[in-house]
Amino acid sequence: MRYPLPDLNTLPADIQAKILEVQEKSGFIPNVFLALARRPAEWRAFFAYHDALMLREDSNLSKGDREMIITATSAANQCLYCVVAHGAILRIYEKKPMVADQVAVSYRKADISPRQRAMLDFAMKVCKESHAVTEDDFKALHAHGFNDEDIWDITGITAFFGLSNRMANVTSMMPNPEFYLLGRIPKAKA
Amino acid sequence: MRYPLPDLNTLPADIQAKILEVQEKSGFIPNVFLALARRPAEWRAFFAYHDALMLREDSNLSKGDREMIITATSAANQCLYCVVAHGAILRIYEKKPMVADQVAVSYRKADISPRQRAMLDFAMKVCKESHAVTEDDFKALHAHGFNDEDIWDITGITAFFGLSNRMANVTSMMPNPEFYLLGRIPKAKA
Amino acid sequence: MRYPLPDLNTLPADIQAKILEVQEKSGFIPNVFLALARRPAEWRAFFAYHDALMLREDSNLSKGDREMIITATSAANQCLYCVVAHGAILRIYEKKPMVADQVAVSYRKADISPRQRAMLDFAMKVCKESHAVTEDDFKALHAHGFNDEDIWDITGITAFFGLSNRMANVTSMMPNPEFYLLGRIPKAKA
Amino acid sequence: MRYPLPDLNTLPADIQAKILEVQEKSGFIPNVFLALARRPAEWRAFFAYHDALMLREDSNLSKGDREMIITATSAANQCLYCVVAHGAILRIYEKKPMVADQVAVSYRKADISPRQRAMLDFAMKVCKESHAVTEDDFKALHAHGFNDEDIWDITGITAFFGLSNRMANVTSMMPNPEFYLLGRIPKAKA
Amino acid sequence: MRYPLPDLNTLPADIQAKILEVQEKSGFIPNVFLALARRPAEWRAFFAYHDALMLREDSNLSKGDREMIITATSAANQCLYCVVAHGAILRIYEKKPMVADQVAVSYRKADISPRQRAMLDFAMKVCKESHAVTEDDFKALHAHGFNDEDIWDITGITAFFGLSNRMANVTSMMPNPEFYLLGRIPKAKA
Amino acid sequence: MRYPLPDLNTLPADIQAKILEVQEKSGFIPNVFLALARRPAEWRAFFAYHDALMLREDSNLSKGDREMIITATSAANQCLYCVVAHGAILRIYEKKPMVADQVAVSYRKADISPRQRAMLDFAMKVCKESHAVTEDDFKALHAHGFNDEDIWDITGITAFFGLSNRMANVTSMMPNPEFYLLGRIPKAKA
Repeated sequence: MRYPLPDLNTLPADIQAKILEVQEKSGFIPNVFLALARRPAEWRAFFAYHDALMLREDSNLSKGDREMIITATSAANQCLYCVVAHGAILRIYEKKPMVADQVAVSYRKADISPRQRAMLDFAMKVCKESHAVTEDDFKALHAHGFNDEDIWDITGITAFFGLSNRMANVTSMMPNPEFYLLGRIPKAKA
Repeated sequence: MRYPLPDLNTLPADIQAKILEVQEKSGFIPNVFLALARRPAEWRAFFAYHDALMLREDSNLSKGDREMIITATSAANQCLYCVVAHGAILRIYEKKPMVADQVAVSYRKADISPRQRAMLDFAMKVCKESHAVTEDDFKALHAHGFNDEDIWDITGITAFFGLSNRMANVTSMMPNPEFYLLGRIPKAKA
Repeated sequence: MRYPLPDLNTLPADIQAKILEVQEKSGFIPNVFLALARRPAEWRAFFAYHDALMLREDSNLSKGDREMIITATSAANQCLYCVVAHGAILRIYEKKPMVADQVAVSYRKADISPRQRAMLDFAMKVCKESHAVTEDDFKALHAHGFNDEDIWDITGITAFFGLSNRMANVTSMMPNPEFYLLGRIPKAKA
Repeated sequence: MRYPLPDLNTLPADIQAKILEVQEKSGFIPNVFLALARRPAEWRAFFAYHDALMLREDSNLSKGDREMIITATSAANQCLYCVVAHGAILRIYEKKPMVADQVAVSYRKADISPRQRAMLDFAMKVCKESHAVTEDDFKALHAHGFNDEDIWDITGITAFFGLSNRMANVTSMMPNPEFYLLGRIPKAKA
Repeated sequence: MRYPLPDLNTLPADIQAKILEVQEKSGFIPNVFLALARRPAEWRAFFAYHDALMLREDSNLSKGDREMIITATSAANQCLYCVVAHGAILRIYEKKPMVADQVAVSYRKADISPRQRAMLDFAMKVCKESHAVTEDDFKALHAHGFNDEDIWDITGITAFFGLSNRMANVTSMMPNPEFYLLGRIPKAKA
Repeated sequence: MRYPLPDLNTLPADIQAKILEVQEKSGFIPNVFLALARRPAEWRAFFAYHDALMLREDSNLSKGDREMIITATSAANQCLYCVVAHGAILRIYEKKPMVADQVAVSYRKADISPRQRAMLDFAMKVCKESHAVTEDDFKALHAHGFNDEDIWDITGITAFFGLSNRMANVTSMMPNPEFYLLGRIPKAKA
């Protein structure tokens, strides 16, 4: 990584606590948690934004839908860290060991629903040419049952991970080796 | 705007307070404050991130440098709200009534320093093809006196406003009329 | 500017006369008049072409429509001189102090009529991929009341200012400071 | 052609005279002369500009150089009329029956001088991204013996035929059959 | 050419025989036959693939259709050898001396049937963004009478000549002078 | 898959034999072998070409180098079949369980040698803009020890799999499930 990772012990208590919690749950510390912790104020805002979008309840986007948007956006932005890390989580939530590679390489060929395909079509437009989004794009999503709040969610997730992708690309953030295999093997799913 | 603006009185107290403070200082409420307040958790994270990047001390980026990055990035992403709003702030900080239009239309022709030109070259690469950033790009900035922390700042600002541009574009956020003239007329500068 | 501006007094009489007339009317000499005058034969052809397109009567394109096409085309070609100079004239003709910035940054978000929006969609296609224009593009304009002569006008203006943009970009033609404020303040409108 | 060609006899006398002169010299009337004559004022400005650039004396650009720029630019803009018509003239001036096809398809592979190659590299930059031209591009041409006036010529020709390409593309101007063979066969060269 | 052409006499007997047969038929040895013969195994596979696609019977694609696809694809890939060589064969098969230049410069303006136009629209999509081909593209071709086997043919020819174009571009393969004139003059057709 | 797979028993004997041999060695029949077998002549040429490039001896490209080129090219062309299938083989040859995902998402961040990085830079240029390859690109590879025959190999592999990618994309060829895990788990490496 281009920027040195801080020593966990030197980090502010709240950040340490959150990181230890993640470590306990995942079995390892995903590199993004340490890489961004060099700057505590940015770290806190980043994960607050992340949680606001990814843990929002009352959304019609499933956890799998959200990780699918991240995987597709990160592939479009050629972000190694996010494709590998969120591809792993996508496999787990969707319980489909092949879906992350499919979405990352060519989502049009992926084994996903037409509703998810429409969701990714929109996310790709937000990712690549958000200025060209028009009312017709909203209508295309409405036709698949998405409402305006869902569209805000798709936009927010695509936009937030566009930020994340740029930070990871410039800092050469590398995915933890653990992510590569996660969710690929049946027994690993439980 | 595509999504209804919430009534200020219905917002959580902390958000209301912050918005009233901005209104007192600016004389009006910039639309982004109300537009994002529909979702308080996102609002808080957005402005915390904004402040972490824009108010950071000990940075070699002046306030004018930061607004210049935002203006250039927002023009590349064709975001009307951010070009007009941050272009106004750029004019004020740089005390140059013409600089925002120059940076937005064609920063290579703008009346800025070679150091600022190099800063914008890098920001444009982060904005458009962050995956292609290499060590050579770091070296080009070092040659102009930027250190690695400054480069993190440029990256963070470009990435964060890439998020902001996408939210504003999809929600059709319109700039307040006040922004268009701000900083254009000598007396308005004070 | 990359090429020296000629001394007004050394120019051929017809060119001097025309320039003085413009100065009298505008209060200043727009830089394009001096910048191109280094080459009298090109100057005469340039302004003859300009006038043929811009002063043509019996057209369904208003003066504001024409300046709007120029502003959008010049923004697409990232021409600082033309965006600032013609944006000013656009504000004056349309009597809308904000419309030029809107059209330059993101015409899809501009406060213009659906007819003008269709006109700019076509102009952008002529500007960026004229080889791909088909009969369907003519039909889309006919549906908004444009006839084939109007379409010729839109094409001619887009094409002519594409020429102008390239000359201004390569010669680093800078807009006169006067243009930046023109038409932005109510009293200036009259 | 998308717009009807006017009857030669109905055209203003000066235009008729010029067209008859061209017909006498070439043996046929190139379609552009009739196609644009629907609008006499534009016609006069177009050919005045054309002649100012193409007949300029004291230029270091040979007639062949100029037609080569037109052929390359018109190929980049996918303009059938101009590639075929000016490719024919290029063959004649350069006395190389294969050079027009080479320049149109892939000028880097064409049998031209390194100086002409540099000239076309610059013309392509003016054609596709004139806003990105910098002093380095001027230096690259100076190294091949071009001076600033020559660079103005290259720019002007590229820009003017960019206009011409757009008019021809939108109006579906078709090249006269005579152009296809011109300059291809040795005896035709004289 | 970037790589030396082998001496015909040093080539394996089967390759020599095939090349002599082509020479007898055409009156000259097209450069591709010698250029690729440096590597006999690749040569054999290349021409076997070529013949499988180009000589396939029971196809609804005429010989002219196939050469038209090659000419359009090669122009999109800016391959001088293939545009000139296959453009010549296209002129001969279609008995239209102007069609190759039209297809190479701007197939939308070419004198071809609507069915051929649809065929080239599809070939261009396969050439430039094959990942985006969908069932709708199949339907558009079905509407013009193409069946799925024809679509396989269009795809195969576009893909195979994409390979050929890349080999010719990197090795700077130059078209034989004979190709430039072939099929342009009525008497030459027989 | 868009086109029906043929029944193995109905295929010509030589194709059957080769497919059974592959099945014996791999434990399954990779879909490309059946998908292309619908057309025996194309099948034979395809695999002859494949073998000529991939099994060539006396090359300075290792088997891992070749699969790395395929993986990078297939990712650039968004070909799901080839990224997944050849990514698996790449993992096995390079004995690096993470390298395929790295090369597919962002080869600049991959754990590969500078020599391999230069090899992929060239392959990407051949894949995306082969017409722009110049002598400078050859020199950059020579500096890493590649000779002209190696460069022919890189070009040939990139070009051949560009063909393969287009066929797989249009026919919606899906990778066999077995490929996704191959080479990811240590024990599978032997």
